[in-house]
This record gives sequence, C-alpha cells and structure tokens, in this order.
Amino acid sequence: MTDFETRARDAKKASYAMAVLPTEVKDQALLKIADALNANKDAIFAANEIDLKNAKETNLPMPLQKRLLFDDHKLADVTSGLKSLTKLDDPVGKVLLKTELDDDLVMTRVSCPIGVLGIIFESRPDALVQIASLALKSGNSCCLKGGSEAVNSNRVLFEIIEKASVEAGLPKGWITLMETRNDVAEMLLLDKYIDLIIPRGSNSFVQYIMQHSSIPVMGHADGVCHLYIHEKADRDMALKLAVDSKTQYVAVCNACETILVDESIAKDFLPQLAEVLREKNVVLHGCDKTKAILPDVLPVEEWHHEYLDYEVSLKVVSGIDEAIDHINTNGSGHTESIVTTDKEAAEAFQNRVDSGNVFWNCSTRFSDGLRYGFGAEVGISTSKLHARGPVGLEGLVTYKYKICGNGNLVADYASGNRTFTHKHII
Amino acid sequence: MTDFETRARDAKKASYAMAVLPTEVKDQALLKIADALNANKDAIFAANEIDLKNAKETNLPMPLQKRLLFDDHKLADVTSGLKSLTKLDDPVGKVLLKTELDDDLVMTRVSCPIGVLGIIFESRPDALVQIASLALKSGNSCCLKGGSEAVNSNRVLFEIIEKASVEAGLPKGWITLMETRNDVAEMLLLDKYIDLIIPRGSNSFVQYIMQHSSIPVMGHADGVCHLYIHEKADRDMALKLAVDSKTQYVAVCNACETILVDESIAKDFLPQLAEVLREKNVVLHGCDKTKAILPDVLPVEEWHHEYLDYEVSLKVVSGIDEAIDHINTNGSGHTESIVTTDKEAAEAFQNRVDSGNVFWNCSTRFSDGLRYGFGAEVGISTSKLHARGPVGLEGLVTYKYKICGNGNLVADYASGNRTFTHKHII
Repeated sequence: MTDFETRARDAKKASYAMAVLPTEVKDQALLKIADALNANKDAIFAANEIDLKNAKETNLPMPLQKRLLFDDHKLADVTSGLKSLTKLDDPVGKVLLKTELDDDLVMTRVSCPIGVLGIIFESRPDALVQIASLALKSGNSCCLKGGSEAVNSNRVLFEIIEKASVEAGLPKGWITLMETRNDVAEMLLLDKYIDLIIPRGSNSFVQYIMQHSSIPVMGHADGVCHLYIHEKADRDMALKLAVDSKTQYVAVCNACETILVDESIAKDFLPQLAEVLREKNVVLHGCDKTKAILPDVLPVEEWHHEYLDYEVSLKVVSGIDEAIDHINTNGSGHTESIVTTDKEAAEAFQNRVDSGNVFWNCSTRFSDGLRYGFGAEVGISTSKLHARGPVGLEGLVTYKYKICGNGNLVADYASGNRTFTHKHII
Repeated sequence: MTDFETRARDAKKASYAMAVLPTEVKDQALLKIADALNANKDAIFAANEIDLKNAKETNLPMPLQKRLLFDDHKLADVTSGLKSLTKLDDPVGKVLLKTELDDDLVMTRVSCPIGVLGIIFESRPDALVQIASLALKSGNSCCLKGGSEAVNSNRVLFEIIEKASVEAGLPKGWITLMETRNDVAEMLLLDKYIDLIIPRGSNSFVQYIMQHSSIPVMGHADGVCHLYIHEKADRDMALKLAVDSKTQYVAVCNACETILVDESIAKDFLPQLAEVLREKNVVLHGCDKTKAILPDVLPVEEWHHEYLDYEVSLKVVSGIDEAIDHINTNGSGHTESIVTTDKEAAEAFQNRVDSGNVFWNCSTRFSDGLRYGFGAEVGISTSKLHARGPVGLEGLVTYKYKICGNGNLVADYASGNRTFTHKHII
C-alpha cells in the first residue's frame, strides 16, 4: 500500500466519525481554524514568499504566479469565509422525505455526507482553505493535492488547519495533504476510498482530471455562454446585457463568449452592438452573415471556444430554433440568456436549451452560488447528474434511507397478511 | 461517424423535443404501446421462440435461458406496468426551489429530463419494455443495447414500441435499438451523446459496465447485505428477521448475505439461529469464533461475497463498533439492518453505517422502490451521487436554473447600486 493509499484509507475511516459530528463541534472547528490562520500569518506569508520566489525563478506563467499570492487580503477573505460558514445551516441530517410504510414501519430519507472528497487544485493556496472548510461544514473527509508550485504555502496552511481542527474535536486523518512527486493520476485511481473529485484550476487542468478519473468529478471545464438577441428584443436592454455579459468580468466562466442575433434585426442591430462592444475594447469575431454587415470582424475558428478575454463571437441565426440548436450543439451546458419581450419565445428557450442555467432578460454573469443566495459556493457544475449549475453546500451531501420497524417481515407483505399504507408524512 | 454514433446523435436531438412533451402526450404514448404489444403478441412470442430455440442449441446457461422467456405472463406484467406509469406524477417541470433575487429578478430550480439514457441489458426482453417506458415517462431519449441471445425478441419489441410511440406524437429517433456485433464498449464511448448508462443484468455484467464506462452509471453490481444482532436484541424477533432477510427470496440483491452476532450473546443465540436457518436449508459459513460454537459451519472464503442462494456467512463481533466497521469495510453500500431494543445503539448504527439503506428492526428485503411507495422502480443504486438506494422516476431527471429578469446587470450589484433581496419563495 502506497503512502497515498494509506492516507486515503485513513481519511475514509475518519469520514465515519465526521458524519456524526455535532454542528457545534464543526462550527467551533471553523472558528479555531480562522484564529489559527491569523495567529500564524507570518509563517504563512514566509512560506508563500518562497513559492513566489521559486515561481519567478522558474518562469511560471504570469496568471499562475498571480494566483499563487497569499497576502493579507487573501487571508482576510478566507477567514471571513470560515466565519460565514458557521452561520449557514448544517446540510447534514435533514429529513428530505418521510413515509409511513405501515403502522409500525416508518421510512425517512436523511441527508448525510458523501464521505471522502478528493480535492485537486492548481496554484491558489486560498482554494485549499476554502474547499477544506466546505468539506468540514458538510461532514466530509478530504484528501488535498496541490500543485508543486505552491508546495510551501500549502504545507503550512494544511498543518495549521489540521492542528486547529483536531484540537477542536475532529477525528485525526479527516484531512490529509498529498504531496509527492507523483502525478494527480495516482489520486484518480483511489476510487475505493475517494467518493468525489473536485478540481480547481485552469480549464485544461480540469479537463485533464475529468478525462482521466474513474471517480465522479464535480466542476466545469469551460463556460461557452451565449446571449441570444431575439427579434422581439428591447434593443436598448439587449445592448446593455451584451456589455454586462461580455465585459463586466471577462476572465470568468459565466462571461458571454457568443452572441446570437436574429436575422430579421441583424442589419440594424449588429452595428449598434459592435459600437458598444468596441467602446469596451472587445475584439469581434463573426460568421459570414455577420461579416456581410460588419466587414471588419475577424473569422470564428471554433464555435465551442472560451475567450476569457475582451473577444466575442457573433452569429446571425434564422430564428429561435437555430439559436437553440446552435447552443445545444456548440455550448458547454453552462449559462445562456435570451433577450426578448415575447414570453412564449422566452419559455421555449428556457425549456429547450439544455444548460444548467437558462435566463430571460438578464446577464449571463448572474449564474453564481452567492448571487443565487446559497451562502457558500462549492463551484459550478456542468455535469447533469447529482448537482448542476452553481453548487452550494448541499452538493457535498448525499442521502440514505432509514427504516425503523418492529420486527417487520417481507414475507407478511408478500403473502398479503399485511399491506403497505404508504402515508406521506414529509 | 459509425451507425452507432449517428443513432446516438439523433437520440440527443430528439431529447430536446422529448423534454417539452406535454404529460398527456407521454401518457397516451404509454397506453398506445400497451395496446400495440397486446395486438402484436403473436409476433412477439414467435420471435421469442426463435431466441429460446437458439439459446437451447447454443447451451446458454440455464439462468439466462429462464430470463429470456417472454410469455403471456410477462406480457401482462409489462402492459400493467405501462398503464400504472400513466397514473404517476410527471417528474418533469416540478419547481424545486424558487427565490426572489431582487424585486424584478426571480430564480427557479425546475426538474427536467437528463437527456439520453443508454440502457444495456442482458437476456430479459421484458427489461427493454420496462426501462423504455420509464425513459418515456421521464422525457428522456433512450439508446437500447440488448444481448445477442435476445436479438429477435428485442427487435420485435423495439419496432412495436417505436411505431406506437411515434404515432402517438413522440419525436422520431427518441428510441433506438443498437444491434451490431460490436461490444457494448462502443456505447460506453459515446459520452458526447449519452448522459447516463443504466445496466440491467448479472453482477459480473454490471461490474464490467461500471468499470469500463466514462459515462455515469446508475445501478448496483452486488448487494452484500448485513443483518446485525445486537446484544440487546429481542431474540425471537432476531430469528424471524434472519429467516426473512436470508430466505424470503434468495436470488435478489437485498437478501442478507452476512449475519453479525454480538459476542456476549453468541453462545446462546448462534445455535438457535443455526436451527431456524437449517430448517430452511441454509448452508452456514462462519468465522473462527462461530466455528467454536457451531463446529460444523463451513469456512468463509471472502466476506465481500454475494451468495444469492441458500447460504450465509456468520460472524461473531465484539460489539457495535466492530459490526459497523465490518460492514463499512466489507459491504457493498446496499442495505443493512440492526436488531436491538436499544434506541441509542440503533441510531448510532443508522448514522454511522455508510450504506444507502440502513434499517432498525426490520428485514433487509424492504429496500425496494415499490415497497418505499415510489410507484415505479428504475433500480437500486449503490453509488452515492445523484441517486442512492431504490430509485424512482425522479432518478431519471435532473434540474436546471431559470432566471427571469428585466434587463438586470451584474455591474449594478457589483457597484452596490442594487442589492440582492434573496427572498425564499418555495
């Protein structure tokens, strides 16, 4: 048994104790972690300095270098996150369904932790704290695997979290940091112990994890989000939504990457759209029909493309059917929005587009756990099973069925001596 | 593009139409299928005859030959299943959550079909009808892949279902039968089009599918279910529950395969237990401590073992901690039951055992969708994500978030010009 495997097995053992921790113990642990991080900030910053220095020396790409930074601002963010988690409902132990099967036989469906989360992240050491605290609140064990570029920061953060949480009453082994020279591939093989993989990092990183894991993965690789301007759109609203969806924050998954425009309004509307987008320095790509109206647009090389930058693809469509078909064929199932004053068209769009978030007359940028009022965000899922769209703490729990009886035998029901009542209670 | 792939792509296209079908159209289609099956029963039986004859000639194992039979009795079963499905609520379009994000911005979480189900089954042609009808009711397309031993029966059943359902208004291509000489492996690669695989067949068959699919799989490979006799058990109840859990129907996944007995009561209790089980012709296997009390038990070769027969493993445990640990280590996460008069012990068992169904004082045989009052059973899932335990129609749907706004921009909320209200409506 490798070291990796032993630790995952220990995390699994600890998960049974995690599953029955009282809410107060978990909340106290979150507060103790926040205190310990503050008390040890010099050690954290010193370790982070070393990582930053190494990153510079090894010419780590600039975006990764930026994400590596863990400073006072990041510390304040993660400690405030830890405190706000204590204010959220415990997602464990909720009765989701209760049915009387017979006078003396009651079934309940009760939420419970998933077990062991395998968390794989690139660069950002604050992601370690954030996701470990979400695991803690939801009663899950976690196996962390960080990138080698953040090895010093991660080790210090992990040691602080482990010490503070175990002192607060959490079972030893509930959290473990896997730092070996081995590839994450080793973690992806531990399906006997790890129940769910949550990757945090660049698109290509997440894509790699999704393609190589036999363990279920929660997350999204990319967000090719669409804004569709229907022929009956309020044009002024459409322009504002296009600017907000595309430019309010370009580097995020719910930013719009493709704008679809109905052919019947394209001739008038596209020049206005081009004007407001170019004012924001957005580079325009377009289909042939777009090019016929806006001659200086660049070509579109691939419709399933996430720019994450001040660039957008424009496409003229014949109507709602082509728009929906284009999205279902070329999108990533993340977030799409229709702009229209026509309620029927909006409903058709919202029902027929196969994405986790389908909006009417608002910006694609709204798809986010905090904006949805979930309190904490685990991430955004583009898979269809288990959790879809922005995922709150409830995405980190599953459920089990409990039945309490009085010696009830199936033979009695099979023979007809007794019959089920099936009274819905909750 | 292979033929396999083209059909899966067509099923995906049809799935967008399936997703918005009115309940009445789906229910009418179910009734038309039932009528068509009855009207064409001679053709079905004739095709089945050929398969049965071939099976005999090729010496297909007897259990598979038995499952291959499609007679009047099976026909009555599937048509009554079709009719009862029309009486169940449509699982699509249910509002699961509704939040006012702002005065003019409302978010709803609405159930919707998963998309395309890949259904792989061995032998039983009635499984084709049953699972296709569940897919239909839940608004999903389905790609069927049957075993070569049932090729004639499957083709006739498929043609009847397709014709009747398309005549009733379902989109062409919503159901497709993939019969090539190729391995099911080809279907497992179609993750671009197929959203969920549901395998139906023997344990080794399902195990193979689970290990080779990059598409999520819903189902269970095996059921190593436990009955735990706690020291404070009502002995008479314990004996009856042991007989029912083990022998009421031995060939099913929720039959008990291992009985754990507390050491403090083992000396008295094991001989009584042996007596009632041997009366039912159950062959006993046991651990060393069991053998010390019941000298003629056979050894246990592997604790994670599903007999599916009149055989059982007996183990003496030191107490509840060892019992829970044994189950979590050697079980399959299916169904376990504790027999005790001690409420605290029962709660500890139900909270700490990591299985989909954890019972107190009743038979393991109760874990079943129909007994749980779900109306229809898709299957039993031993995975922890999406659906766990007996799965009703709701296991075949996912959800999407819809937001209806009035031109709302994220920029206004980011700048503080507007603030979220986050009023919980449903």
